[in-house]
Amino acid sequence: MMKEALIQNLDIKKLLSGSTTFTIVDLGCSVGPNTLFAMENIIEIVENKYHSERLGSKKLEFQVFFNDLTANDFNTLFASLPDERKKYFAAGVPGSFFTRLFPCSSIHIAYSSSSLHWLSKLPVELQDKNSPAWNPGRIHYTGAPEAVVRAYANQFEEDMVMFLNARSQEIVGGGMIVILMPGVPDGVLTHDVGIALTFLGSILMDMVQEGLLKQDQVDLFNFPHVYPSVKEMTRLVEKNGCFEIIKMEQRNARTNTEAPIDIESAIMHLRAFTQESVANHMGTQIVDQLFTKALQQKSRFSYMLYSSGIEIGVQLFSLLKRK
Amino acid sequence: MMKEALIQNLDIKKLLSGSTTFTIVDLGCSVGPNTLFAMENIIEIVENKYHSERLGSKKLEFQVFFNDLTANDFNTLFASLPDERKKYFAAGVPGSFFTRLFPCSSIHIAYSSSSLHWLSKLPVELQDKNSPAWNPGRIHYTGAPEAVVRAYANQFEEDMVMFLNARSQEIVGGGMIVILMPGVPDGVLTHDVGIALTFLGSILMDMVQEGLLKQDQVDLFNFPHVYPSVKEMTRLVEKNGCFEIIKMEQRNARTNTEAPIDIESAIMHLRAFTQESVANHMGTQIVDQLFTKALQQKSRFSYMLYSSGIEIGVQLFSLLKRK
Repeated sequence: MMKEALIQNLDIKKLLSGSTTFTIVDLGCSVGPNTLFAMENIIEIVENKYHSERLGSKKLEFQVFFNDLTANDFNTLFASLPDERKKYFAAGVPGSFFTRLFPCSSIHIAYSSSSLHWLSKLPVELQDKNSPAWNPGRIHYTGAPEAVVRAYANQFEEDMVMFLNARSQEIVGGGMIVILMPGVPDGVLTHDVGIALTFLGSILMDMVQEGLLKQDQVDLFNFPHVYPSVKEMTRLVEKNGCFEIIKMEQRNARTNTEAPIDIESAIMHLRAFTQESVANHMGTQIVDQLFTKALQQKSRFSYMLYSSGIEIGVQLFSLLKRK
Repeated sequence: MMKEALIQNLDIKKLLSGSTTFTIVDLGCSVGPNTLFAMENIIEIVENKYHSERLGSKKLEFQVFFNDLTANDFNTLFASLPDERKKYFAAGVPGSFFTRLFPCSSIHIAYSSSSLHWLSKLPVELQDKNSPAWNPGRIHYTGAPEAVVRAYANQFEEDMVMFLNARSQEIVGGGMIVILMPGVPDGVLTHDVGIALTFLGSILMDMVQEGLLKQDQVDLFNFPHVYPSVKEMTRLVEKNGCFEIIKMEQRNARTNTEAPIDIESAIMHLRAFTQESVANHMGTQIVDQLFTKALQQKSRFSYMLYSSGIEIGVQLFSLLKRK
């Protein structure tokens, strides 16, 4: 999908304007190996297009920037880079992609996969007992009152303003942003990852009932994920005004959407992306107990998922072009 | 010294040619904080010159690349970067500076401090009992036969060919290389760091006498340092042919050259840069014992240093300009 869209819409000649260096960044790269595959994939697409259009006799050089938060393990990422750096020059860039990370007009393609649904911070109203956005007994906006949903959506909007503003300065005219993230169909609020979080919240509440946690610990814990719709993302990109929307659509990340979900794998995945937050908020000693209980209650998760009637594995795919 | 030389010789207008991004790299940056001071220093010099020459109304943006071997602890370096990234955009670049690290013509100033005297590898002849460059009972070329000295010098030449070749492609016309490294006056072979290595070799030989090490372990161990002269560096830069020599001179790194050396500190410094090699070659358990003995024999080191009659703390300072 990305390949076709890039081949059709990338104006390499205009982008390079005489230079032979093509610059790509992965925003939220983590430690690999997915980022390495994605970057090599993009390089191959650009290189093939460059050659098939006979744009120059000189060899194109690629510089790839791997970006993630400073706490990311860049040492591990760097150790996994291919020994022979024939394909591209690599650099790691620590810092939040909600801020400027690169000089003006220095990036040709920015890519971000499974990262933009992480909020830069939690809306403060969620921590305020007297706010309508107070969210007791839940850890996410899935299934929560309108005010909670709005608090999350407002923070996502604020984050996207910062994200698109920073990128609009960094990406050259004609350059592109590729975004892959969990998203929902228009008019739907519920994503399966949100249901997984709702399930996790219900297990935490079980632990409150059993006296293993205090009610306050769950009430004050909220998970910083938002899954936007095509309509909402379109609105935010248009509000920024610097990017033309080439593609903005739903897709399904699962290769076989008919196959049943492996609930145990889904719980392990849930653990992978939540355990650090849980440990920070409620203590490391809670984590094992929580996920042992979650596995014991896997049929509850299964029921929540299938009774919701939603399509599982929906992703948002955006391809934006800098005007 | 660097400041004056840069102010006099940097043609910022030509370097930028319309762009507002100035690119700096520290080759062999380690984990800081020295690299942060050095980079901020260079930024300040360039910024002041840019403003005093009224070269543009637009704000200059700086991109700083921190380079070191992949095994360097980039996580620690990244954590020590200033929170507010107002001064520059930072990126880490893992890899050997004896290879290409950056796209063609993408760097304005390359800086390298206390790194270029590390050879990329040890000459193989040093490991060969039947070669005239076999170096038994010593761990360095200091005080060794001519063939050993030549083997080291040849490797240094090979490394400088690779270093200058890579940089000649990466640095834009008019861009500069700043090199600071231990060096020797013309016609002199002995540097105080070399004497420290000779001293370390003598302690290792004591341990052979005491039966704590095997003779072979010392004979096969050689330390990959070369301290070149102004004349030798000049020859290597001229051989490459891509750089104009703006400065190539000796300086003394010590603020007070009259003050006596603190021998214990010198031994701790010796430990800092040799212990990993010693541990890899002879086992971790040797390290503490070796340096306890070295401290006990500190008067021997003192005698070796002062009886040599050399000036202590000599550095080579090179400023090269890409033709």
